[in-house]
Amino acid sequence: MLKLVVAPPRLAMRSSSFRKAAFSTAAAAAAATRFQGGVSMVQGASRGIGLEFVRQLLKRSEEGRVVATCRNPDGAADLLKLKKEYENRLNILPLDVTNETTIEAAASAVSETYGSLNLLVNTSGILSIPNVLQPETTLSKVQKSSLLLTYEVNAVGPILVIKMGGGSGTEREFAVVANLSARVGSIGDNGLGGWHSYRASKAALNQLTKTVSVEFSRKKDPIVCILLHPGTVDTDLSRPFQRNVPEGKLFTKGFAVQKLLNIIDNVKSSDNGKFFAWDGQEIPW
Amino acid sequence: MLKLVVAPPRLAMRSSSFRKAAFSTAAAAAAATRFQGGVSMVQGASRGIGLEFVRQLLKRSEEGRVVATCRNPDGAADLLKLKKEYENRLNILPLDVTNETTIEAAASAVSETYGSLNLLVNTSGILSIPNVLQPETTLSKVQKSSLLLTYEVNAVGPILVIKMGGGSGTEREFAVVANLSARVGSIGDNGLGGWHSYRASKAALNQLTKTVSVEFSRKKDPIVCILLHPGTVDTDLSRPFQRNVPEGKLFTKGFAVQKLLNIIDNVKSSDNGKFFAWDGQEIPW
Ligand SMILES: NC(=O)c1ccc[n+]([C@@H]2O[C@H](COP(=O)([O-])OP(=O)(O)OC[C@H]3O[C@@H](n4cnc5c(N)ncnc54)[C@H](OP(=O)(O)O)[C@@H]3O)[C@@H](O)[C@H]2O)c1
Ligand SMILES: NC(=O)c1ccc[n+]([C@@H]2O[C@H](COP(=O)([O-])OP(=O)(O)OC[C@H]3O[C@@H](n4cnc5c(N)ncnc54)[C@H](OP(=O)(O)O)[C@@H]3O)[C@@H](O)[C@H]2O)c1
Repeated sequence: MLKLVVAPPRLAMRSSSFRKAAFSTAAAAAAATRFQGGVSMVQGASRGIGLEFVRQLLKRSEEGRVVATCRNPDGAADLLKLKKEYENRLNILPLDVTNETTIEAAASAVSETYGSLNLLVNTSGILSIPNVLQPETTLSKVQKSSLLLTYEVNAVGPILVIKMGGGSGTEREFAVVANLSARVGSIGDNGLGGWHSYRASKAALNQLTKTVSVEFSRKKDPIVCILLHPGTVDTDLSRPFQRNVPEGKLFTKGFAVQKLLNIIDNVKSSDNGKFFAWDGQEIPW
Repeated sequence: MLKLVVAPPRLAMRSSSFRKAAFSTAAAAAAATRFQGGVSMVQGASRGIGLEFVRQLLKRSEEGRVVATCRNPDGAADLLKLKKEYENRLNILPLDVTNETTIEAAASAVSETYGSLNLLVNTSGILSIPNVLQPETTLSKVQKSSLLLTYEVNAVGPILVIKMGGGSGTEREFAVVANLSARVGSIGDNGLGGWHSYRASKAALNQLTKTVSVEFSRKKDPIVCILLHPGTVDTDLSRPFQRNVPEGKLFTKGFAVQKLLNIIDNVKSSDNGKFFAWDGQEIPW
């Protein structure tokens, strides 16, 4: 793949004071403000949960800067609206997780502008795409192309973004990495079957995130890498499947992201590699 | 993809007496002979554990028939040697799990020749390929192409083989499906990190197998679908990584397959969807 970026695609430098602050002993008490003054990146921010993360991260303080990435910034109307309101604090960059060139370019731009990130939230994900991808109800409907596409976007994508951030070798880059997984990715919790491609991609994302977390935990200043299940949230992703959601169990984006940010704010080093639901409960693998 | 096979690619018919026998109440007592008189298919049989499955399945009785599939039958010297010895009981068919046409053709041939299968063992798998694929030691070495290739062979492949067997809708086809997984595919057991592509592919295989098992268990006569970890076995796959294997922990193919066949022989309906090590212990997800 042609690399358009010559500068090293690394999101962070060694001596970020933001990052140090995030792991200082005083940080626990100040958890709620942990990411308020720092730099957060939300990957997959054009719509849904990602967009809401951007909104809440901008709203909660007067200082924090947010990098919002999406496939097509020009068409991301809601992000562009936020940009008008938070001109200096919001940076919108193109990033398609299936295109490594865009990942490298975004990583390079972030590195040049901010040096390092305190928080990376990978929210991009697919379950269905009209005329392309349909969650499978039985094995007979499983298509190789669906398995591969879903894996590429949901499992490979977030890992390549973390890789470009430089979380390798002796460098350590992020304070917290949060990957949006899903309870249906849990193998132990799989009592219903179906949704083969999506389930497999999220189980693989869980395994990849766990694998990366082991590497991060070997470093002196740990980077905490967690998996999050947002609950069933009223977004484009869940819309075709909301019929069977019990009363009161379909969350607004606002509620879900508030809960997830609460988990992120209070994360401890010992949470590295764990898989949390919106309510803070751990989900079995 | 061009379908060369017009006949429905279904490995089994409804009224197989073999299959019924496998789940009769007397079957538990006669577990050791369960697959001796039936038809077994070993997918990925040119070398290693798959080849050893073929050998032991042929050796243990005078009746059982074995379908051995591999990518290149003409080059599968050891299988061809077995064919000389077991002319009438061994059927070698081409099957590359990355090529759906070959899966359909094999399924169709099996259906026409035998009607149904009692046992399907998916053993094909990749960990490293010289100059193509190398298990990753750190995140910085993770390549998109490695993630996708390993997923296609190790996770997608076996599921497409089961699908072509017809385990869908109201049909039920196999007595037992055993997929070769690996302990390093366990997320809960992942304390070392590394081997990102392989670990993710096996976690996804575990999730896909579990998903399929849920569907199978909804049928009246259950088909039992299990995942197996063979231990560290002396084959081409493990050879480059055998240095750190503790004394006495590197199994011969003969020993490992004997243990795995013992699990398969004694499998119960309640084992459907479970993940067993060679010694019968369940492995966490
Ligand atoms: N909603 C739920 O109930 C629920 C439940 C469990 C887990 N989750 C998980 O939560 C995450 C967010 O879901 P959501 O409900 O917010 O979904 P959504 O509303 O459908 O939004 C999905 C986002 O992913 C982006 N995306 C898709 N393909 C991409 C690619 N190749 N590169 C970069 N971005 C891409 C989309 O961008 P475009 O606008 O360019 O398409 C969009 O911003 C997903 O990982 C999902 O699996 C959601
Ligand atoms: N050995 C161990 O220590 C160990 C440990 C845990 C799990 N396992 C698992 O056990 C299984 C068997 O491993 P092994 O040690 O016997 O490996 P092996 O000796 O390397 O044999 C691998 C087999 O897979 C076949 N294969 C590869 N790609 C294929 C494709 N696209 N289509 C069809 N067949 C293909 C190979 O066929 P060709 O001859 O055509 O290449 C070969 O027969 C694997 O799933 C592996 O992950 C092994």
